[in-house]
Amino acid sequence: MSNQGLPVVSAECCTPLVAEPLGAGEAAELARVFKALSDPVRLRLLTLIGAHAGGREVGQGVCVCELTGAFEVTAPTISHHLKVLREAGLIASERRGTWVYYWLLPATLERLAALLKPEPAAL
Amino acid sequence: MSNQGLPVVSAECCTPLVAEPLGAGEAAELARVFKALSDPVRLRLLTLIGAHAGGREVGQGVCVCELTGAFEVTAPTISHHLKVLREAGLIASERRGTWVYYWLLPATLERLAALLKPEPAAL
Repeated sequence: MSNQGLPVVSAECCTPLVAEPLGAGEAAELARVFKALSDPVRLRLLTLIGAHAGGREVGQGVCVCELTGAFEVTAPTISHHLKVLREAGLIASERRGTWVYYWLLPATLERLAALLKPEPAAL
Repeated sequence: MSNQGLPVVSAECCTPLVAEPLGAGEAAELARVFKALSDPVRLRLLTLIGAHAGGREVGQGVCVCELTGAFEVTAPTISHHLKVLREAGLIASERRGTWVYYWLLPATLERLAALLKPEPAAL
């Protein structure tokens, strides 16, 4: 393991590390995912997908036709936001006939949640 | 309760809502917090504070002198990033003598984590 991400401890420093801070590579990767969440319409789209029956199940999903009506933005704008969420690994999609269906990818969501609410390290 | 955030359900829609999606007001507020997390240095600072003994305790905290050494950016840049995290409600700070001490604000972190990993609604 490299010490990338660990601080240079000076003589005057006195609080020890009790857990492993995020390394530079993982931080860059996760910052991109958080950027995808930094837009109100995308946040609402994400929770709207999760709030629908089937929105958390691979291969089920929510029809895009059920997502566009909730927002005062055009369908192409919704499509753009869904693409950003998909490219960030937060949702997946599948075309079935006329419509595209979207569902949440829990692995990415749980990774972010674990970062924000890690178990406190034992001292 | 307003129906802000709820979709207009068309005749062809078939998957019911099983939970409450995020409303527009809360989405705008939380998007600003996620924006604060969308920078790799800020993400590393946040986890570095949390990784130190006292970094999760109000009134304890981690000296800024222990945070600057971990990054190849200037001290004023670190101060700027810490200010962004503070203004987003993710950390708090207190000056004690020469140094400023920082600690995490768990309420904000837990709110984000809960949004990303909500309990699946009962069908």
